[in-house]
Amino acid sequence: MGGNKAVAYKGPGVVEVIDIDYPTFELKDGPGVNPANVGRKVPHGAILRTVATNICGSDQHMVRGRTTAPADLVLGHEITGEVVEVGPGVEFIAVGDLVSVPFNIACGRCRNCKERKTGICLNVNPDRPGSAYGYVDMGGWVGGQAEYVLVPYADWNLLKFPDKDRAMEKILDLAMLSDIFPTGFHGAVTAGVGVGSTVYVAGAGPVGLAAATSALLLGASAVIVADMNADRLAQAASFGCETVDLTKGGPVEQIEQILGVPEVDCGIDAVGFEAKGHGEGAGEAPATVLNDLMDLTAAGGALGIPGLYVTGDPGGIDEAAKKGALSLSLGTGWAKSLSFTTGQCPVMKYNRELMMAILGDRVQIAANVNASAISLADAPRGYAEFDKGAAQKYVLNPNGYLDAA
Amino acid sequence: MGGNKAVAYKGPGVVEVIDIDYPTFELKDGPGVNPANVGRKVPHGAILRTVATNICGSDQHMVRGRTTAPADLVLGHEITGEVVEVGPGVEFIAVGDLVSVPFNIACGRCRNCKERKTGICLNVNPDRPGSAYGYVDMGGWVGGQAEYVLVPYADWNLLKFPDKDRAMEKILDLAMLSDIFPTGFHGAVTAGVGVGSTVYVAGAGPVGLAAATSALLLGASAVIVADMNADRLAQAASFGCETVDLTKGGPVEQIEQILGVPEVDCGIDAVGFEAKGHGEGAGEAPATVLNDLMDLTAAGGALGIPGLYVTGDPGGIDEAAKKGALSLSLGTGWAKSLSFTTGQCPVMKYNRELMMAILGDRVQIAANVNASAISLADAPRGYAEFDKGAAQKYVLNPNGYLDAA
Amino acid sequence: MGGNKAVAYKGPGVVEVIDIDYPTFELKDGPGVNPANVGRKVPHGAILRTVATNICGSDQHMVRGRTTAPADLVLGHEITGEVVEVGPGVEFIAVGDLVSVPFNIACGRCRNCKERKTGICLNVNPDRPGSAYGYVDMGGWVGGQAEYVLVPYADWNLLKFPDKDRAMEKILDLAMLSDIFPTGFHGAVTAGVGVGSTVYVAGAGPVGLAAATSALLLGASAVIVADMNADRLAQAASFGCETVDLTKGGPVEQIEQILGVPEVDCGIDAVGFEAKGHGEGAGEAPATVLNDLMDLTAAGGALGIPGLYVTGDPGGIDEAAKKGALSLSLGTGWAKSLSFTTGQCPVMKYNRELMMAILGDRVQIAANVNASAISLADAPRGYAEFDKGAAQKYVLNPNGYLDAA
Amino acid sequence: MGGNKAVAYKGPGVVEVIDIDYPTFELKDGPGVNPANVGRKVPHGAILRTVATNICGSDQHMVRGRTTAPADLVLGHEITGEVVEVGPGVEFIAVGDLVSVPFNIACGRCRNCKERKTGICLNVNPDRPGSAYGYVDMGGWVGGQAEYVLVPYADWNLLKFPDKDRAMEKILDLAMLSDIFPTGFHGAVTAGVGVGSTVYVAGAGPVGLAAATSALLLGASAVIVADMNADRLAQAASFGCETVDLTKGGPVEQIEQILGVPEVDCGIDAVGFEAKGHGEGAGEAPATVLNDLMDLTAAGGALGIPGLYVTGDPGGIDEAAKKGALSLSLGTGWAKSLSFTTGQCPVMKYNRELMMAILGDRVQIAANVNASAISLADAPRGYAEFDKGAAQKYVLNPNGYLDAA
Repeated sequence: MGGNKAVAYKGPGVVEVIDIDYPTFELKDGPGVNPANVGRKVPHGAILRTVATNICGSDQHMVRGRTTAPADLVLGHEITGEVVEVGPGVEFIAVGDLVSVPFNIACGRCRNCKERKTGICLNVNPDRPGSAYGYVDMGGWVGGQAEYVLVPYADWNLLKFPDKDRAMEKILDLAMLSDIFPTGFHGAVTAGVGVGSTVYVAGAGPVGLAAATSALLLGASAVIVADMNADRLAQAASFGCETVDLTKGGPVEQIEQILGVPEVDCGIDAVGFEAKGHGEGAGEAPATVLNDLMDLTAAGGALGIPGLYVTGDPGGIDEAAKKGALSLSLGTGWAKSLSFTTGQCPVMKYNRELMMAILGDRVQIAANVNASAISLADAPRGYAEFDKGAAQKYVLNPNGYLDAA
Repeated sequence: MGGNKAVAYKGPGVVEVIDIDYPTFELKDGPGVNPANVGRKVPHGAILRTVATNICGSDQHMVRGRTTAPADLVLGHEITGEVVEVGPGVEFIAVGDLVSVPFNIACGRCRNCKERKTGICLNVNPDRPGSAYGYVDMGGWVGGQAEYVLVPYADWNLLKFPDKDRAMEKILDLAMLSDIFPTGFHGAVTAGVGVGSTVYVAGAGPVGLAAATSALLLGASAVIVADMNADRLAQAASFGCETVDLTKGGPVEQIEQILGVPEVDCGIDAVGFEAKGHGEGAGEAPATVLNDLMDLTAAGGALGIPGLYVTGDPGGIDEAAKKGALSLSLGTGWAKSLSFTTGQCPVMKYNRELMMAILGDRVQIAANVNASAISLADAPRGYAEFDKGAAQKYVLNPNGYLDAA
Repeated sequence: MGGNKAVAYKGPGVVEVIDIDYPTFELKDGPGVNPANVGRKVPHGAILRTVATNICGSDQHMVRGRTTAPADLVLGHEITGEVVEVGPGVEFIAVGDLVSVPFNIACGRCRNCKERKTGICLNVNPDRPGSAYGYVDMGGWVGGQAEYVLVPYADWNLLKFPDKDRAMEKILDLAMLSDIFPTGFHGAVTAGVGVGSTVYVAGAGPVGLAAATSALLLGASAVIVADMNADRLAQAASFGCETVDLTKGGPVEQIEQILGVPEVDCGIDAVGFEAKGHGEGAGEAPATVLNDLMDLTAAGGALGIPGLYVTGDPGGIDEAAKKGALSLSLGTGWAKSLSFTTGQCPVMKYNRELMMAILGDRVQIAANVNASAISLADAPRGYAEFDKGAAQKYVLNPNGYLDAA
Repeated sequence: MGGNKAVAYKGPGVVEVIDIDYPTFELKDGPGVNPANVGRKVPHGAILRTVATNICGSDQHMVRGRTTAPADLVLGHEITGEVVEVGPGVEFIAVGDLVSVPFNIACGRCRNCKERKTGICLNVNPDRPGSAYGYVDMGGWVGGQAEYVLVPYADWNLLKFPDKDRAMEKILDLAMLSDIFPTGFHGAVTAGVGVGSTVYVAGAGPVGLAAATSALLLGASAVIVADMNADRLAQAASFGCETVDLTKGGPVEQIEQILGVPEVDCGIDAVGFEAKGHGEGAGEAPATVLNDLMDLTAAGGALGIPGLYVTGDPGGIDEAAKKGALSLSLGTGWAKSLSFTTGQCPVMKYNRELMMAILGDRVQIAANVNASAISLADAPRGYAEFDKGAAQKYVLNPNGYLDAA
């Protein structure tokens, strides 16, 4: 139990597998740990042996050097594991349980948690509401792209799979419960997707594909996915989505060709602030997706915005972008009575239901996002390929659980 | 345009095809027409040539002689048609439109209609809120199991199919939009069915099968359908439902065998007051389904009750049943914090969305309920077979539109 | 800190103040403690010095001898207190905090708690979902009509008042947050009360008055309270309610006199299974309130049912009542598309918001229910007077905090 | 019945009372009438003799010359009247009825109307979803600041007051139902205001005061109204609101002084695109209010945005403003998981309930917004004073009905 290999950010464009300490029931000082969290006791925590731990698009933001993440910050907030140890305050989670970890860290004891708003827990991040494992400015909870990881407030946070054997049969699907499947689902739900809806998803990365999968699971009659990456569009088409190729221009005309009308009921932003303009070779243009969605969503519709927008972006294209200001044509949205929902997905609001859908064979999320298991040692390759736009969702396999998957 | 053949109730156990008048834009006196409705002008109406008109389980209640329905009452409230004439007050529906008719008749001008509660419109039935075509004590609107039928408030009530050719390809599916598909869907929605839910549907008749179909469309992880009729259970199994055979005893043990737990999240009553007890040869026992549902639904669950309960039943098994009183173990439900939703489905709340799901190939409702087209002349046979428990949904084809279906 | 005086049930019609042990962080064996709960460790608990602890109508059910409550069961589930000790697992509640205790005991770690359904927590009562302090068949958690009481899962359950001085100014109002104010509010919310609603509340006891207060707070245009007790009706009238005197007959005609129509939008049952019929001297008739509500609620309305219904009642008026079966005219409700919500109020869903309304001087709940502080020694008198129908809400004052109130 | 005096826009800064034709059941050509609407038959309409017709802040936008409104466009979309004539297609509204007219014109027959989204009706404005009386680019329906006005789709649009005498006692309150009361209420509802909420309302004009009134009616614990106009702030304080004076700087510090915390649960924008910056003499800065609201609303909160944002503003302060683009710090909102609801209030969703609250004496909207009746001839003075910031809501009285009010 001595060692613990983990994936760390080393500097712009560089991740490495390093050795870190095996977790204990205390948050010790380290790269990126908020001073107010140093020494925090975690008797309510559980230590997991990692079963699956995925690379996420939001990790890339740090890896590209567009944040203040310090060197040696251990990455990883999409964690599935087996419990190997529980603290004295844990009552309903036991050693041996196979569990999914919501990427949002939540205390289960503050006003927001009590209202199911676990994405903005008030007690885990001294800087502001909301936290996540292995992320800059989120309090310093150690990332889970590692062999072992500590999860605080284990009774509250952990989702236990009811049957281990059945769970291992579906483990790549269940590994999507920690973040992208609920995040995509939240995007669809907040965009108002229901039975019969027509839906536009901006972005065919893993979250976009998860949003499209969710829209279909919710009964949407047509789901249109837009991107500039042909491989990712092909992935979307593989499970029944229509596609819009933005290298060929804006989305409205293409939507009209597909649906017969130039608008949809529901719009989902699975891109965020690193959006690009339209047309071959278009550069970064951070308000593009939101302005597109206001154009192409019918009056009375809603926009789900799981794509990340930030309060500051050192790598922004201009002064406004650097401070997180977007030039939005809000009048267009206002004239159409649109509504907008932003923010982190509160994973606990959805993960049990989505687990049930997976276990009941109602949805093939792993196939839809093209989840692929790779070794922990291969993490740097995974980060690099994902950054280049591979139509895959990389799942790290630090302890061999996925060898059969 | 002179004639109009129609299916009429003639007396207990007897239906016949008779000749009635071709409709005009006025509700004339006739069998079962409420005196306060006689002579009512219908300039807002449309006359339809019937494309499909289904036999419904609630028609059987009249045909069995358990109501005060008068002889020669024309039956039929599940209507799909082509518009052949519109009144001077109709603005957005045109001759030639292919349309679905919600079985609830609604004015679109009262408080309830404005609140989307079209099942309890205040202006169409002088006796009480709510009405339907061809039904006893519903105001006297002439039934639609006929070659031609009048639909009042056509701009409000009619759902126009956007493309006639595409609609004709799916016409047996679309024919289910007038009643049983929305009714089953309403049962599922009010039972709280969502992604991942476990669901129990009491009754494998057409409404039960539509409720099961709806639960799957809404993302349920497991749908269990219960009945005493083996053919109907086989029909449920044909599209992915689990089944409970009530001739073998109560449902709880069988649910436990299927799910591993003796309870579900959501319960749907697709039977109503003509419920029977459990076990081979069990007789009528009107509170059985509701008491079962309170037993087998988990704490915090909800019951959707599209199955009909009446205020008086001349054929009831005892004095209590005759006046519509049920002996309910409400304490069981109270201890579990259950909620209950009763009443007619407000079809207009759901039919457009369900049409979109059908047209988008997301659901196969006609196949799931085993919809079968028969000629108008065969209506008596359809009624008889349906009454004997045939696992079919009979769709009358008065004008040959379904010859290809 | 050695002693702890408490109010105990001694036998039908008898309560006494007895000496019990000062609480520790363990649930020890005692009257009514479920064997599976004996010895349960409570490191997550807090010990409170009681500030206010109210007598509740549901306590009377035990005291009247209509349950299997054992002698020496300590009563009391409406608790407000000051924290004097916290277990090692408590993180955000501190000694000295002034807090309200929801009467539902909840773990904050099970599926139902995570879904805000704290009235049916799965982990606190070995018999079935849901628990309460000092109540028969609820797991055996010791009642709070005592000088000191143990509250498990303190971080989750306790609502801390933000300012102690301000709280003490409003302490009789805040004392209603543990049960009757949220319970009445839940009744109003689940009955669909909103701005402009017309509302009928069956029962002018404390829960009925709290429901009426809640309806007004929610913006109801007219609130009608019905009872057979003139003092309680006068209490309802004192804060702006209309009243129906059921000794004069059924409610429908009286409603019509008040509103001009014989029906309301929303019906609340604040009586439960010990309902009586109508007219001077009417006897017990357990289905009366629910059948009344179905009669007098308009089509499309909803019924909130905080009034208790039980699964068995040894003192029931007939065999059906003894096993908790009610003869309900459900057909009446079905024809009107009514919905019904039953069960314990999940207090945590409402208590923070209601506290804010009290602290903001927006509602006078203590005055409306006529809350009166009495000494712990006077508890037997309080029980007796309340049982006779006093229009008061008795608040026990075991430690002198309320001497100024 | 020959004449009809009306208030018309004559050019920037100028309104005049002119003579126009008495209405008929047809939309005739005239200033601002969309060619596609010219000659439109209105057999479903009613002609009203105006009882009250209010000057609205959105009228000022045209009067200030910041739109393309043509000369002689008759103004007025806040109309209360007595029915003097009904078209042949009207069934449930009768001559003599006293009615409120929702400012949104809606057909009651399109998808959006059927879904209660009457602010974006698809059939009344050839340019885009949604319409209003007397407004530029809204289809050309003649304004109601006149002695007589035509209301189309009368059965659908009109809200009849149940008792004329009672209504006349409350007529200045009821006159607010056509627009500002529901609009303010919609702002509060979409901002998530409920019992116990803390609320910030940007803007103390009539809509802001109506939003504040609504928040109190919904049970808010504290309502803070912000403006730069001392008279309007005094008006807000007169009915129990706290106030923030923006001439003294930004709102956050002032909120902290009032509440003890620098944030609220709910934010309402009752200003729109003509927003100004902070501090004495601050100039127009269109994104100010929305950026403020994102700063001062707590994580998990919601923003209701009844304030108008436009797709183009010829008088905008810079190129971005001229085309309706706002520089929004959306990252701030995203980090807090805020949601945003924009658009016209769908009046019919709320007006009946608010009428009931007025008639039940639960709210004093006329007093709160300082409604003052003036003659039609005085309309130019009303416009001028209102534009200067008078803390009054001007109600025109073209036919003397308000002489007693």
